[in-house]
Amino acid sequence: MKNIIKIGLAGLGVVGKSVYEIISQDAELLKLKSNHQLKIVAVSAKTAKNFVASDVKFYNNPLDLVYDNEIDVIIELIGGQDIAKQLIISALQNNKKVITANKALLACCGYELAKIANQHNGVLVYEASVAGSIPIIKAYQQGFLANKINKIYAILNGTCNFILSEMTNKKQDFLPSLKQAQTLGFAEADPTFDIEGIDTAHKISILASLASNTAPNFEQTYIEGITKITANDIKIANQLGYKIKLLATYQQQENNQVLQAVYPALISQQHKISQVDGSYNCILTYGQYFDDSFFVGKGAGGNPTASAVVADLLDIANNTYSKQILGYNANKINNDEQKIISINQRFGQYLILFHFNKLQNNLAIESVFKDSQIDCLQASCIELDETKVICGIITNKQIEQNIVDTLDLLDKSIIKEAKFIRVETF
Amino acid sequence: MKNIIKIGLAGLGVVGKSVYEIISQDAELLKLKSNHQLKIVAVSAKTAKNFVASDVKFYNNPLDLVYDNEIDVIIELIGGQDIAKQLIISALQNNKKVITANKALLACCGYELAKIANQHNGVLVYEASVAGSIPIIKAYQQGFLANKINKIYAILNGTCNFILSEMTNKKQDFLPSLKQAQTLGFAEADPTFDIEGIDTAHKISILASLASNTAPNFEQTYIEGITKITANDIKIANQLGYKIKLLATYQQQENNQVLQAVYPALISQQHKISQVDGSYNCILTYGQYFDDSFFVGKGAGGNPTASAVVADLLDIANNTYSKQILGYNANKINNDEQKIISINQRFGQYLILFHFNKLQNNLAIESVFKDSQIDCLQASCIELDETKVICGIITNKQIEQNIVDTLDLLDKSIIKEAKFIRVETF
Repeated sequence: MKNIIKIGLAGLGVVGKSVYEIISQDAELLKLKSNHQLKIVAVSAKTAKNFVASDVKFYNNPLDLVYDNEIDVIIELIGGQDIAKQLIISALQNNKKVITANKALLACCGYELAKIANQHNGVLVYEASVAGSIPIIKAYQQGFLANKINKIYAILNGTCNFILSEMTNKKQDFLPSLKQAQTLGFAEADPTFDIEGIDTAHKISILASLASNTAPNFEQTYIEGITKITANDIKIANQLGYKIKLLATYQQQENNQVLQAVYPALISQQHKISQVDGSYNCILTYGQYFDDSFFVGKGAGGNPTASAVVADLLDIANNTYSKQILGYNANKINNDEQKIISINQRFGQYLILFHFNKLQNNLAIESVFKDSQIDCLQASCIELDETKVICGIITNKQIEQNIVDTLDLLDKSIIKEAKFIRVETF
Repeated sequence: MKNIIKIGLAGLGVVGKSVYEIISQDAELLKLKSNHQLKIVAVSAKTAKNFVASDVKFYNNPLDLVYDNEIDVIIELIGGQDIAKQLIISALQNNKKVITANKALLACCGYELAKIANQHNGVLVYEASVAGSIPIIKAYQQGFLANKINKIYAILNGTCNFILSEMTNKKQDFLPSLKQAQTLGFAEADPTFDIEGIDTAHKISILASLASNTAPNFEQTYIEGITKITANDIKIANQLGYKIKLLATYQQQENNQVLQAVYPALISQQHKISQVDGSYNCILTYGQYFDDSFFVGKGAGGNPTASAVVADLLDIANNTYSKQILGYNANKINNDEQKIISINQRFGQYLILFHFNKLQNNLAIESVFKDSQIDCLQASCIELDETKVICGIITNKQIEQNIVDTLDLLDKSIIKEAKFIRVETF
């Protein structure tokens, strides 16, 4: 590569602006760290033309970046799966190196992109797609590469973690906490992707693909968000010694089967994952040789994410980027041999929550489950008013289907609104 | 590079044996991950010849590996600064790529080695030198590379952390805890390098070199080990809400000055570093753009360290290794412009511990320091017997020299055995 790297930047949102500023302001330092001059020569965005220096080309159509012969590297920060996908494919086909933060696209179409990159001997790097300030992609591609990765437990969405922390600290319900997150800039105006767990599922699909050397499997990932978690759920969990976190997990089982899922989970207050609060992300990885490794850092925000984008750019300049894109390997015939099991087959503990009438005071908690095979290891209750009580019990380890079946069979004249939340043990 | 990489392994200790086993047993998996066959063709060790397969050459003199024309990569796991240094220099001069875990050598002579590597366009990689299972070297070389790293706080010696955890949990003194660590294999027969903080200082010198783009500066690193910490120190710290950890720290100050030191420190029980117990290591890094990032994992042991060695080997095979060796840059004229301040200039809080006679019961703790400028923020005491008391006070932030001077001036007829332990705030 020549001693100057010319960059086309697509997207000028919060991250795009940070990337622009870091590359402009730190030009000297970045040159020292890469032996290359890194220069943004063109930007494409819908608006914010005034943000960009007058000597930088400004395109309304991001695809124009592909046909700008001056450009070596395209940084895609548009997001979504429409124009961003077109842009990346065209870029790879036209021998532009690509940096992206687009987790949705990688989770859904990452293999298609990897195949195209491979055919064109191209570069596609994506550190910023998962957990902004934590270099977890490079850790999976390089630092942990000698290991089979068996299990991943992670908090991958700062918005959800902020909301759950607010609900816990302020003992308030989901909606006011969401509002607060929006006011403080920790949640978007349309927070659906975050609060429904979809963003988290995109990210665990990417990590699982790297961990297992298979295609990202977003489609089969079980996804449950945090919108149904209440202040009372959190209160009972707390009384029992747990916090509730939106957990992403990948767990190898026997026979090449895996559990790959996103759900709110009870995690012991003593466990390090439960101590990761606010907008922070964390990833706990279990590997064959290193045992366990735990990373914590900010998951989103302009600068933390931009820092990962610029790290990818320096990797390109220094030729230290991984040529392996996701789990894709052109030499492997079957890239998709892992089977994701149904969530009903999960084997673990559960918090069962149920409402009942306090006046039925002959009712012992244990008696509720007397006909089931479920053992009650711990119990705790909240009195809602003079007649209503919510109780929670922690079960022994069960196949999830047993829990579902048991709740179906409960005597509805006694138990109302029974539900469960998974408990994670490590 | 050809499709087979031939390896010479020097050293068959715990890590060497693990490396040998991983490369032998996982040959197929490693080939998939690197598109290369990785083959150990020669081993050098003092003993353990029987450990090695009969088709592998066995040399008594490690320097013979350098003159074995078949070998592409030499893995140096001998340790120390004598033969290991000769081996690495000869290897680089003879166009062998080098992987080492030798923190003592890198901390003391890393720049000399980097210069030689640079002259010969050679490869010198060393992920296993710091915090075995945590890929912190690669994170500093790649993931965090867009950032100026301002501050590092780390636990880098599993032996010391294990001993301090034992002292805390079992309320016992240093020596029986050291014995226990030795029995369980967490401390060596001669534990000097570990318990005196020297090993930790080697490692923080390496991290600081990477963080600051300057030469490793082990010589000027302030080093204080854990041998003088007592069960009573830990008890008082605990009563005040702190744990005691052997902390390695690098903190940029104004005017290109840095504090670079290793010392036992009080860390709030609420802080994530204090929750890292047993033989685990951790590194908390503050960067300009990512804010803070925290990594936790096993710091030593055969497999965790070997996993890092093999990761370096895969980096060589995949051409993803960093060409930047420590902070060395051939283009920079002044590679050493950072000034490490004297520990006496540290500005921070302190736990002052002092013995006094309980019968002097008119003595209020505050009065001890009445003539100094030290404020007592918290205090806690232990009665040793009917006459003796140990008290500890937490001071406000002070220049360390003030603390030293104040202790010198204390009324020796009242106060005996006054000492201090640093308190770290973040």
